[in-house]
Amino acid sequence: MALTPAIQSLLGVLNTAPADTKPLTDLLPLPSRVNPGPLADIVGAADVHTDDAARLRRASGKSTPDLLRQRAGDVSYAPDVVVCPSTHEQVQALLTYCSSARLAVVPHGGGTSVVGGLSPQADRFAGVVAIDLWRLDSLIELDTISRTVTLSAGMRAPAAEAILNEHGFTLGHFPQSFEYATIGGFAATRSSGQASAGYGRFDSMVVALTVATPAGSLTIGRAPSSATGPDLRQLFLGSEGSLGIITSVTVRVRALPRETAYRGWSFTSVDKGMEAVRALAQDGPLPTVLRLSDEMESTLQHSTDGCLLLVGSSQTIPGATALGPEIGEKWLRGRYAGPYLRDALLDAGAFVETLETAAFWSRLPQLYRAVRDAFGDTFLVLCHISHVYETGASLYFTVVGSMITPLQWAEVKARVGDTILANGGTISHHHGIGTDHRDWYVREVGELAIDTLRAAKQRLDPHGILNPGILIPASG
Amino acid sequence: MALTPAIQSLLGVLNTAPADTKPLTDLLPLPSRVNPGPLADIVGAADVHTDDAARLRRASGKSTPDLLRQRAGDVSYAPDVVVCPSTHEQVQALLTYCSSARLAVVPHGGGTSVVGGLSPQADRFAGVVAIDLWRLDSLIELDTISRTVTLSAGMRAPAAEAILNEHGFTLGHFPQSFEYATIGGFAATRSSGQASAGYGRFDSMVVALTVATPAGSLTIGRAPSSATGPDLRQLFLGSEGSLGIITSVTVRVRALPRETAYRGWSFTSVDKGMEAVRALAQDGPLPTVLRLSDEMESTLQHSTDGCLLLVGSSQTIPGATALGPEIGEKWLRGRYAGPYLRDALLDAGAFVETLETAAFWSRLPQLYRAVRDAFGDTFLVLCHISHVYETGASLYFTVVGSMITPLQWAEVKARVGDTILANGGTISHHHGIGTDHRDWYVREVGELAIDTLRAAKQRLDPHGILNPGILIPASG
Repeated sequence: MALTPAIQSLLGVLNTAPADTKPLTDLLPLPSRVNPGPLADIVGAADVHTDDAARLRRASGKSTPDLLRQRAGDVSYAPDVVVCPSTHEQVQALLTYCSSARLAVVPHGGGTSVVGGLSPQADRFAGVVAIDLWRLDSLIELDTISRTVTLSAGMRAPAAEAILNEHGFTLGHFPQSFEYATIGGFAATRSSGQASAGYGRFDSMVVALTVATPAGSLTIGRAPSSATGPDLRQLFLGSEGSLGIITSVTVRVRALPRETAYRGWSFTSVDKGMEAVRALAQDGPLPTVLRLSDEMESTLQHSTDGCLLLVGSSQTIPGATALGPEIGEKWLRGRYAGPYLRDALLDAGAFVETLETAAFWSRLPQLYRAVRDAFGDTFLVLCHISHVYETGASLYFTVVGSMITPLQWAEVKARVGDTILANGGTISHHHGIGTDHRDWYVREVGELAIDTLRAAKQRLDPHGILNPGILIPASG
Repeated sequence: MALTPAIQSLLGVLNTAPADTKPLTDLLPLPSRVNPGPLADIVGAADVHTDDAARLRRASGKSTPDLLRQRAGDVSYAPDVVVCPSTHEQVQALLTYCSSARLAVVPHGGGTSVVGGLSPQADRFAGVVAIDLWRLDSLIELDTISRTVTLSAGMRAPAAEAILNEHGFTLGHFPQSFEYATIGGFAATRSSGQASAGYGRFDSMVVALTVATPAGSLTIGRAPSSATGPDLRQLFLGSEGSLGIITSVTVRVRALPRETAYRGWSFTSVDKGMEAVRALAQDGPLPTVLRLSDEMESTLQHSTDGCLLLVGSSQTIPGATALGPEIGEKWLRGRYAGPYLRDALLDAGAFVETLETAAFWSRLPQLYRAVRDAFGDTFLVLCHISHVYETGASLYFTVVGSMITPLQWAEVKARVGDTILANGGTISHHHGIGTDHRDWYVREVGELAIDTLRAAKQRLDPHGILNPGILIPASG
């Protein structure tokens, strides 16, 4: 991807040098420890892969440390074998077998985790099996009366959206991982999209789930709403593959809108911008997309002065200067470009990473400043608000600086995580926990809450084979 | 309460005779088995009650079988002692003590359960302690920026609404139990109110909870939305006192609207009415109140022909005949009257009870007819839709007939429950599970889901003292 002039001059300031990167094809994982025979008995030999290329492709996620480790030749997270089931029953049989054989299982959807969600702690297991769900990609049922669709979990977002568009509907879920991420992955991570102001988070769209676990299968959700005990869909939404493998998801869909307008508006300060988006979130009218950039992000990413507010509607925004439609359309065209820009920056020898949180409105301005300060002087810090609620909003930070090691970044991230918790933020608004946020997660929700999750996991996954060390830390 | 002419003539048809009822003050519970001393050490002697009146007042809930049993002199569900803590710490200490002493605990809020939610199965315990939360009734924090309020769990709905109204806000939660029900009870039962079309269900308003359990305390929810693992608020919302006692709740509030208009509209058939409310739920504009009565309910309760749709706004409803504001205002004045009317009918010797479900739109017309048929010929069956969602709606049935015994009603209810599950409905949209719906609940969510809840309960309540037999059936 071509770099903008602003980024080019930034790289000059950072005095970076192009990185020395090993091509993925030159890397060699350790020999596979898993006998593929019993797996092939379940899914057929053609869908069991032990070749290096297949294993390396599932070796880790897409965080900057993941990429840096891989660029440095570290492929220690490569699974021993990759299995590609095509039915719920095959997934169930695989889990039953892997549990009996004490093989760790890593469910694989789009592979877009940026929090170490594909890097299990599997030392105590006989091997690691990646269950890639890409063949579970069918439309199971479209109920046009109830406006729900049931999709197999491995279907990628563009395929789901294309099918729905054909029938005049949309899911309205457009995270930056859209091109690769899967329906099951959205559910397992409580994904949030760029239009979630209008369409809601993915967890709020889910009306039913089918899940395979080592202890058996569950289907949860048979009504639009219910008072039948705790909402158990919510136990699996956000479980990040640690409690079961989601094999199908029924989601609410909406009528496809006529073309949405995207307009740019400018505020003289980030505080004024926050006040304005709060008013829209609390008193309406709420556009489907609402995205406020701070001064640094407005300058570097959008080449505008002040604080840019992108609005997915043609409504007038009080207290702001109109910038017109061009900047909105430009954002729309480039909405999935961030990760590619990161690759280009890493190639050029710069370090770039993102980090996000959310808080109630009353804590947000202080949290914004505290996190920005906690990054220190060695980074340029860009921030935007892209998800608003009646009671608060998210903060999404991008940092750019001279190249540092994954260990150095871990120290920065730890300091920022402490700052987030100390200022009333959550350790993740939509990236999830994975392995990277686990320690702060425990501090945020408390040991008793974690123990309660562990008790549920113990019932569903008695040998702890599912994504060991991801989300739920090992006890003791 | 005075009976309408339609109801008066109905009673003539039913050929009822006034019931013979024992005054509550004449009844005598069994002697208390619990030593009040250790409880008094925690809350003070003045807030521990072993007198008959205090125990009888917490003896059961408000289902018709509850009332009939009580009218017949059966007070076997009276707790041994009533304790009234005033702080979270006292609730925590009470649970710790009761767990060590193997005393069953029944949390008591408004006492308005209509599903046996106050009738624990406590035979294997040394006694039953009712923890009445009425003294936890304070406003803890009102955050006018984030538009959230933190309330102690024992605060009754009218008190909460009055405090909020003073500050220009409303909770917008008006179930028929409004006059008695508490904030904690709303959360523990996933309550739904008459304005939930506009304001949402109570579970969707909750942003944070504090819970005491025998294993310790939890505070859950620190951001408007989060991707930090499963949403554990949802484990306690709907847990009906079986996993812990909710001691405070933080809820989203909204700006108090200018006076809402209520208008009546009439459809020529219930199917046309269902189509119309579906269109409003899916494509808007959605009023705060939307309530469609079938022919029988329109005639008997509202003395109108056709199917009455009550709308909490002055918008025009396509395909319907305008009935004007009088009928809407009349409904508004009588919105909490149903239970009193039931008392009057029971006094007059008639049997009356309610029962509700929900389903996706595509299943709703068939479910409506199947349930109506399943009640059989011995009842007049009235029905309304009062809670609509994009994907479906609730069905609320009222049945009136000649007096029958609780056992005879249980047979009818079992048949209707089977019919609900066979036709895609949930066993409860907002009344909850309690003891009455437990068997159908297990069939609806499956044994593995129940076992997973049991595992969570085992961690939080190792001796199973909390509401034994309510929601979660005894294992084995």
